[in-house]
Amino acid sequence: MDAVNVGLLGLGTVGGGTATVLLRNAAEIQARLGREIHLYHVAGLNIAAQTIVDPQTTKLTENAFDVVNDPDVQIVVELIGGYTLAKELVLKAIENGKHVVTANKALIATHGPEIMQAATEQGVSVCYEAAVAGGIPIIKAMREGLAANKIQWVAGIINGTGNYILTEMRDKGRDFTEVLAEAQALGYAEADPAFDVEGIDAAHKLTILASLAFGIALQFDKTYTEGISKITPEDVNYAEELGYRIKHLGITRKTDKGIELRVHPTLIPEKRLIANVDGVMNAVLVQADAVGPTLYYGAGAGAEPTASAVVADIIDTVRTIDAPLQHKVPLLGFQHDAMRDTPVLPIDEVVTSYYLRMQAVDKPGVLAEVSETFASNNISIEAVLQKEPTGGENSVHLIMLTQKCIESNVNQAITAVEQLASVQGKVVRIRLEHLGS
Amino acid sequence: MDAVNVGLLGLGTVGGGTATVLLRNAAEIQARLGREIHLYHVAGLNIAAQTIVDPQTTKLTENAFDVVNDPDVQIVVELIGGYTLAKELVLKAIENGKHVVTANKALIATHGPEIMQAATEQGVSVCYEAAVAGGIPIIKAMREGLAANKIQWVAGIINGTGNYILTEMRDKGRDFTEVLAEAQALGYAEADPAFDVEGIDAAHKLTILASLAFGIALQFDKTYTEGISKITPEDVNYAEELGYRIKHLGITRKTDKGIELRVHPTLIPEKRLIANVDGVMNAVLVQADAVGPTLYYGAGAGAEPTASAVVADIIDTVRTIDAPLQHKVPLLGFQHDAMRDTPVLPIDEVVTSYYLRMQAVDKPGVLAEVSETFASNNISIEAVLQKEPTGGENSVHLIMLTQKCIESNVNQAITAVEQLASVQGKVVRIRLEHLGS
Repeated sequence: MDAVNVGLLGLGTVGGGTATVLLRNAAEIQARLGREIHLYHVAGLNIAAQTIVDPQTTKLTENAFDVVNDPDVQIVVELIGGYTLAKELVLKAIENGKHVVTANKALIATHGPEIMQAATEQGVSVCYEAAVAGGIPIIKAMREGLAANKIQWVAGIINGTGNYILTEMRDKGRDFTEVLAEAQALGYAEADPAFDVEGIDAAHKLTILASLAFGIALQFDKTYTEGISKITPEDVNYAEELGYRIKHLGITRKTDKGIELRVHPTLIPEKRLIANVDGVMNAVLVQADAVGPTLYYGAGAGAEPTASAVVADIIDTVRTIDAPLQHKVPLLGFQHDAMRDTPVLPIDEVVTSYYLRMQAVDKPGVLAEVSETFASNNISIEAVLQKEPTGGENSVHLIMLTQKCIESNVNQAITAVEQLASVQGKVVRIRLEHLGS
Repeated sequence: MDAVNVGLLGLGTVGGGTATVLLRNAAEIQARLGREIHLYHVAGLNIAAQTIVDPQTTKLTENAFDVVNDPDVQIVVELIGGYTLAKELVLKAIENGKHVVTANKALIATHGPEIMQAATEQGVSVCYEAAVAGGIPIIKAMREGLAANKIQWVAGIINGTGNYILTEMRDKGRDFTEVLAEAQALGYAEADPAFDVEGIDAAHKLTILASLAFGIALQFDKTYTEGISKITPEDVNYAEELGYRIKHLGITRKTDKGIELRVHPTLIPEKRLIANVDGVMNAVLVQADAVGPTLYYGAGAGAEPTASAVVADIIDTVRTIDAPLQHKVPLLGFQHDAMRDTPVLPIDEVVTSYYLRMQAVDKPGVLAEVSETFASNNISIEAVLQKEPTGGENSVHLIMLTQKCIESNVNQAITAVEQLASVQGKVVRIRLEHLGS
């Protein structure tokens, strides 16, 4: 069969990695696919382009529209990133009848509905395996591997920078600001770290996972997002002492009342496999009714790990390039007419457990008073730890783990506790998940 | 579109689970697939069949040939197990132009070539996701998710019974025989436990993984197999003291000289994620050139976890049921004409590290003598631990970890060491893998 012509937009980290993998592993890929993938037209501002691709066999341009408008290109691979230009290019490629592969989580999470609508009308596919958890084939696992299941919840470490920072804080007792500065120097974190450490990047990915899990529309704007910048080494240590680790998780869960969709620091039992995923690595834990828990682990970013997912999408696209739509996996895992409008729960209505830390006067009766305040707000306490804070005089750290409760109830209880004369300052609150089946 | 008619052979644990999942999750599956899967004809000796399926909508028989010869059945699902009858039924189904789904690792590992040849000639598909690691979608990950990569090696905990026994031995200091008896009582292990604890079951699965990884033929007869029955609580403890855990791994690795294909107890560093996979759970770690390491974790057995994989295969089969072969993933991940005849390395030529334990006379100079004997056989020692064995008098346990060496060399060295007057009895030898990238 003829080679399939691929057009590549962007030769940055992921674009360069994709070109490298396509060229280096061309023979292996063809042995699997039975068809040649030709890197036919590449758009990159990068003057180093010619060191990656061969200008004898690949057309080069600095104008990405040359590629999406090239009648000989069959698959457009968008690796520019960002919202505006990327969206315009992807929609133009679809309009021109080309299949699309993208690693752009922000684009899919925010403009996915419009893009998928256009693709469905044109009968072309849009693949985005690389948009979530980099090289881990989690989209394929959820859309296909677990297709026999009702998925109950998903919890993922889906931002490598955040996980690197939390791992360093735990292993070396360092504080957030210091590790972040180092991560920036090492190139792990962007100059503006908000995307990573405030959870926006994770929320983009979680939005996509929730759609695949539950057949709901992509709803980035309804995702609750809380970052890790307020986590202190003290809380990391207390968590450890209680048998937990703090991870920045994206969690989506189907409940009777609606779907939870939330990114926040979370205490999880240290014996869970996902609690032992350290450094820049990613992992996604999926709980489903037939298979139970399954976990998928690997590199969530980087040139070649991301390229691995991009090229897998190209291979899938080539395999069914001339096939009717019913031979292909639906874009979001569910048939368009079977998508559901299950509501997303406001964070106030989420039910989970909590780690609470407060500074209290060190005198008899304080624990009783605090406990009583929680009890009268319907919060049951499961464990208590009392510690002398470094440098604290006449005061103690009181750490409490609650049983499951409604978030609005715990917030009320915290307000009441903060008004006690024996409690100083604000209560630190970190959510806690057991992640059991 | 019309419903697709599925014929099910076997209503035992996995067959019952498959019927249950297909019926319970029918709406979810149809929402994903866009087409109804009709459990049309079921063969089971189980008189409980009628409690699982509805005789109003499903034909029941005690003769499996009724199903494979039913002209209205489009997909035959073989869940009988074993070699002889299962093979006959699968070949008959293929001859009748039906697609096949099976969970039968023994059948695929030993008769796979003949079955796949027949399927290729008939233009039907044979899916076997459930044959390796139960509910974990590892076949899909390797054939499709990692298709952009050259795979370098695969290491898997692919027998839950063995992993349960080793976990109990470590956690509770119990010995092999005691835990095995308990596992049998709990129904985890068969009355004849050889399949599980001697590694035959794992070797079946590893045979399949090696084919998918490297594009080689299924060669169960060339797989080196060593069980866990000789592992003692002492070795488990010494390994722990040195920072390692003992797992029963299936390992396949591509080297310049050929492909390693081996199942044996293995020391692995405790900080590796796969070292923390405990109890009956399975995990497969894949090292590939672009993505690096990825790991897949979940239940490797059980009614519904296995059913999850079986039904995923049915869904995949239905999706491309009328499609030409080039729209489908090749049976073993590589195009038939691109399969390779890379040789499988004999175990003597494998290069790995070793944990060696010997009992030696407790007197000065013994360590030097033993070390010298290893050195003169070109074995470099990386770590040494000397312990007093319980009940030992005038003797010590000498534990050594070697650097990487050729297995035939280490065997020679062991023979030489066993001839030393100061060394008593046999040297215990367990292979050691760092599983780093």
